[in-house]
Amino acid sequence: MLKILQIGLGPLGVRIATDLSERGLGRVVAAVDVAADIAGRKLSELVPGAGARVRVAADFKAVAWKSIDCAIVASSSDLAKCAPTFKLLLEHGMTVVSTCEELSWPFLRHAKLARELDRLAKKHGGRLLGTGVNPGFLMDTFPVGATAIARSVDSIEVHRYQDASSRRIPFQKKIGVGLNEAEFKAQVKAGTLRHVGLGESLHFIADGVGMKITRWEEDIAPVFATRNMKSGVGPVHKGAICGVRQEARGFEGKQLKIELKFQASIGYEDPHDRVIVVGVPPIDLVWRGGVQGDIATSAITLNSIPALQASAPGLHTMATIPLVGCAAPRRK
Amino acid sequence: MLKILQIGLGPLGVRIATDLSERGLGRVVAAVDVAADIAGRKLSELVPGAGARVRVAADFKAVAWKSIDCAIVASSSDLAKCAPTFKLLLEHGMTVVSTCEELSWPFLRHAKLARELDRLAKKHGGRLLGTGVNPGFLMDTFPVGATAIARSVDSIEVHRYQDASSRRIPFQKKIGVGLNEAEFKAQVKAGTLRHVGLGESLHFIADGVGMKITRWEEDIAPVFATRNMKSGVGPVHKGAICGVRQEARGFEGKQLKIELKFQASIGYEDPHDRVIVVGVPPIDLVWRGGVQGDIATSAITLNSIPALQASAPGLHTMATIPLVGCAAPRRK
Repeated sequence: MLKILQIGLGPLGVRIATDLSERGLGRVVAAVDVAADIAGRKLSELVPGAGARVRVAADFKAVAWKSIDCAIVASSSDLAKCAPTFKLLLEHGMTVVSTCEELSWPFLRHAKLARELDRLAKKHGGRLLGTGVNPGFLMDTFPVGATAIARSVDSIEVHRYQDASSRRIPFQKKIGVGLNEAEFKAQVKAGTLRHVGLGESLHFIADGVGMKITRWEEDIAPVFATRNMKSGVGPVHKGAICGVRQEARGFEGKQLKIELKFQASIGYEDPHDRVIVVGVPPIDLVWRGGVQGDIATSAITLNSIPALQASAPGLHTMATIPLVGCAAPRRK
Repeated sequence: MLKILQIGLGPLGVRIATDLSERGLGRVVAAVDVAADIAGRKLSELVPGAGARVRVAADFKAVAWKSIDCAIVASSSDLAKCAPTFKLLLEHGMTVVSTCEELSWPFLRHAKLARELDRLAKKHGGRLLGTGVNPGFLMDTFPVGATAIARSVDSIEVHRYQDASSRRIPFQKKIGVGLNEAEFKAQVKAGTLRHVGLGESLHFIADGVGMKITRWEEDIAPVFATRNMKSGVGPVHKGAICGVRQEARGFEGKQLKIELKFQASIGYEDPHDRVIVVGVPPIDLVWRGGVQGDIATSAITLNSIPALQASAPGLHTMATIPLVGCAAPRRK
């Protein structure tokens, strides 16, 4: 049974902590969240079945470090924001799994910080991994893993087309559901409306199959409802914004080598994930019906822990740890 | 550039050695094969583009061990038969990748030998890995990897339905093409006609997702041609045997938990590979058109080398090494 320090108890953190105990994998023995409406509360008020004696702290002062097997950080997409927490955890030699999107391939936007985190982890015997369903798996680890059977890869295209109806409300807000175009543009400009991670996934793939990306670009556009629909943030009328479409493209010189197509919108009728490789042999790999993101992000976060524990100290990615499968409680 | 010791120069070994140089990944600097019609020949007679000075030796006496980065063994499906070679290589601290099917999950049929190989590898700083497209990937590593996003797995079914028309002739012979029923039965009884590895794949999956298999079984049956066809071993008339169907089932108590369905036959019209997981979320993952086995086995053998080199000494499986993707020559 894993003894977990849970950091971040927003909807995703709560789901991870709930799954941890419901799946019989372990329990949260300490919890930290700086949010004023969460810090100080009993964990059991937030996480059904959590130990009655665990209270969410606003800082790490009372953490009994030696009793912790692994820390889980589900707070921000922004690696710079998470960095002080990661540093503190690594200085205590912790094994740390995080859903921080930028940590899935930290070398893209935070190369210097990545080196610092790696040094710190190695010095104190800690381990740090960024994972999640996307980035972290469907548009990076999984497509690279599929090319294990390839003799050559000329180009890779990955699609993630989701029906966002079943996603958590913060996710629906993050993809712009219910906004008008001016609001959508303003939120894109402010950096609050976007799926974070296409650039990370693109560079993860390039590294995994030995492509040298010399230029890359990313687009974002609203998706408009073609009928009246319901959503977690209220009704969505025909013609209103019901989600987001984002694409990233990576080039070697003038050649398009990697193309990532992401769409998350309410009511999308043919949700699926797909990997298309132009190469030898050609690959066309389809997740029929797609992969529900909230279940999957919580799942892969917990499933990655044993593989990370088996790895050497340092900053890791999904490319440097052993195979991750659905974790089961240890049995005789 | 990898310097490779190639052991076994049958059709698969030749393909691997050819791909090695054609892909720019490395070159064969020493080669060993005990077969009377291969030993003593110039490697360049067998492998287009191979170094003119390499001659295939019948033993390891002249191998300059220090010049070797990795040994590739493509000789037998039978781990007991390969074991003396593996031991010798590990005693020289070699990193060894092999297509020996039983090595993909050696704990099933050779638990004691597996412990011995692991000890030997650790003692001398060597590494040993069994891989291939199947066993080694499509019916084991890949399905386990797909469950990384799963909260729970109740049961797993994996299909591999191949059109064997494009496979190498020894493979077509191994699956019974052109035999009559009496010959088919006799060859099954003699153990020469079968796909080796379903049991290994089944137990790899069970270990990867934490199932406890208490009983397992395997069936084999001929596939009959529904029309006149051509094959690598001659014409196949309607009604004649054109391939093999094999199934393995693993149970926890009375519950069917893992089902593997393998068919390789000439002219199969809907070749594909597929993973179906009953769990949360449910998974239905399809390789449209399937994966051509000969290209893929050579590819994954070479692609696995960097991940194995990055692993600690010991006996490995595809579950204990980091992510394998299509390997590319190192570039600036």
